[in-house]
Amino acid sequence: MTEFNFNIPTKKDISEAEKRIRGSIVETPVITCDAANDRVEAELFFKCENLQKAGSFKSRGACNNILSLSPEDLKRGVCTHSSGNHAAALARAAFLSKTKAYIVMPDKADKTKVALARKYGAEIFSCDSTLAARETMLEQVKKETGAIEIHPYNNLQTITGQATACKELLKQCNNSLDIVIAPVGGGGLLSGTALSAHYFGENVRVIGAEPEMADDATRSFYAGQLIPSENPQTMADGLRTSLGSYTFPIILNYVYEIFTVSEESIAYAMRFVFDNMKIVIEPSSAVTLAAIFENFSVFAKKKVGVILSGGNIGYGRLYNIFEAFKNGYC
Amino acid sequence: MTEFNFNIPTKKDISEAEKRIRGSIVETPVITCDAANDRVEAELFFKCENLQKAGSFKSRGACNNILSLSPEDLKRGVCTHSSGNHAAALARAAFLSKTKAYIVMPDKADKTKVALARKYGAEIFSCDSTLAARETMLEQVKKETGAIEIHPYNNLQTITGQATACKELLKQCNNSLDIVIAPVGGGGLLSGTALSAHYFGENVRVIGAEPEMADDATRSFYAGQLIPSENPQTMADGLRTSLGSYTFPIILNYVYEIFTVSEESIAYAMRFVFDNMKIVIEPSSAVTLAAIFENFSVFAKKKVGVILSGGNIGYGRLYNIFEAFKNGYC
Repeated sequence: MTEFNFNIPTKKDISEAEKRIRGSIVETPVITCDAANDRVEAELFFKCENLQKAGSFKSRGACNNILSLSPEDLKRGVCTHSSGNHAAALARAAFLSKTKAYIVMPDKADKTKVALARKYGAEIFSCDSTLAARETMLEQVKKETGAIEIHPYNNLQTITGQATACKELLKQCNNSLDIVIAPVGGGGLLSGTALSAHYFGENVRVIGAEPEMADDATRSFYAGQLIPSENPQTMADGLRTSLGSYTFPIILNYVYEIFTVSEESIAYAMRFVFDNMKIVIEPSSAVTLAAIFENFSVFAKKKVGVILSGGNIGYGRLYNIFEAFKNGYC
Repeated sequence: MTEFNFNIPTKKDISEAEKRIRGSIVETPVITCDAANDRVEAELFFKCENLQKAGSFKSRGACNNILSLSPEDLKRGVCTHSSGNHAAALARAAFLSKTKAYIVMPDKADKTKVALARKYGAEIFSCDSTLAARETMLEQVKKETGAIEIHPYNNLQTITGQATACKELLKQCNNSLDIVIAPVGGGGLLSGTALSAHYFGENVRVIGAEPEMADDATRSFYAGQLIPSENPQTMADGLRTSLGSYTFPIILNYVYEIFTVSEESIAYAMRFVFDNMKIVIEPSSAVTLAAIFENFSVFAKKKVGVILSGGNIGYGRLYNIFEAFKNGYC
């Protein structure tokens, strides 16, 4: 076993997080799709975190953090920077715990996500899209409000919360999965997934998927060192962030491989899900199925858990993406 | 108890149908939505038959019919007329049982639904939209092929199959529901729902919902006699049919009331589901939530099962409906 320079979440931590957040999130359904199975000659089990409260798995990590705060810390409020889903999830979790959320969001953030965070009562601070601008603005917000920062991915309570999705999925599939595939942006979901597969699964391979246009996880994974992306432009707005100092070592040790997918593949997979599964997923969610379609020999004959991470996209953007990539769709 | 001039499906019939179709359909998830609950101050439990095989509850009735046929009858193939969902469901059920499906569809049928029926290998016969044209064409198909007709709703095996959705829903909600609401077109789903609520529920009120623009069920229900619609134009293409000689008496006896909803309400409810629940429903599915929004005092403080009947709609039509009715949406 590799040594980490921090205490990675334990099996017990994840089980406790699951109990802690039980009343604040839902056990999302796992659904199957004959059309997808037929196409890749595998058995796919889709974990519908797009149907999670606040529309994504981010509610797990956000609730796990807020429900772990002391009453004194809760009074201070919470803050973060986020492109959207963590913002909405943290805003909701803060609302449930009767505390205040201050959230820095890039001015190019998906409008649906900004509206959702605002709906749950968060105070929004808009800034440029770069990581530097987000971090500078967040420091200012922290100084002015005294709020506790809840990082969207590079935070052990966040990782532990996100890990509960894979734990649930394994149980819902009677622990019969050969592979679990999850998207990777900052790596909170993928690192948590890998830990749960390690602790609760039986020889489950964990695979990551990310856009070619934001391939820092793949480059970092194969180089063995953190190589952040610089201002990536993929339509998968939830995956533009780069791995962090906690998520990267866990991924390096517990993830089997990472695939990158084209923007076209992301659009096709999103539409495949819309057409055949009657659920709405955002581009960041579609990288997993896109990776399966692009690499089907890896998945053929296997039982594969596919984490659909979120569904926060407006109908206008959905339509525009489907129209832009409609040629060649089948 | 009223006397019927036919044998209505019994409790045992429905339980047997549930077992018969178990391997051919899925137990669809029941999901909740805080935004909907908050709006109507009720607890809503959405039975997601839009996530059913072939995209609607119609797979239940179609499979129940085909799995009840003798080997001799199976060899003859099956036929029907349908605006879409029954067509796709029957085509799929025939495919699973290795028999042939011949399907008469109106030329104005939703393209997504025609494509789905064709995908499952059905032979499609196109005709005018009127009931007369559909029936004439079907007679011709029956004569030429010798296929067995499987009526989309006015057929006791169909009704019994559709009844299994409500039976499942009641069980999934630990038999705690006060009300179950279902859409009504030809009445297969509503009559089956009412029978299951009667047999398996505990004082569950069953309510129907239909478009104002196809309000034959409401008019028939309150007049106490069948009054068919003539060529109704509602966007809810699955609800343009009128009640039949089997479905109407069951509805008259076992349904508590029926609400009609405007086209605008249908569009708003569809979009509410898209925005807040991240699932795709077709207009016919949205009449139930539309009726709840329009009559919330009836549902307030109650536990309400809401059957979302189907999700077969293309993204282009979805977008057009949302755009056409976007003013005033909130």
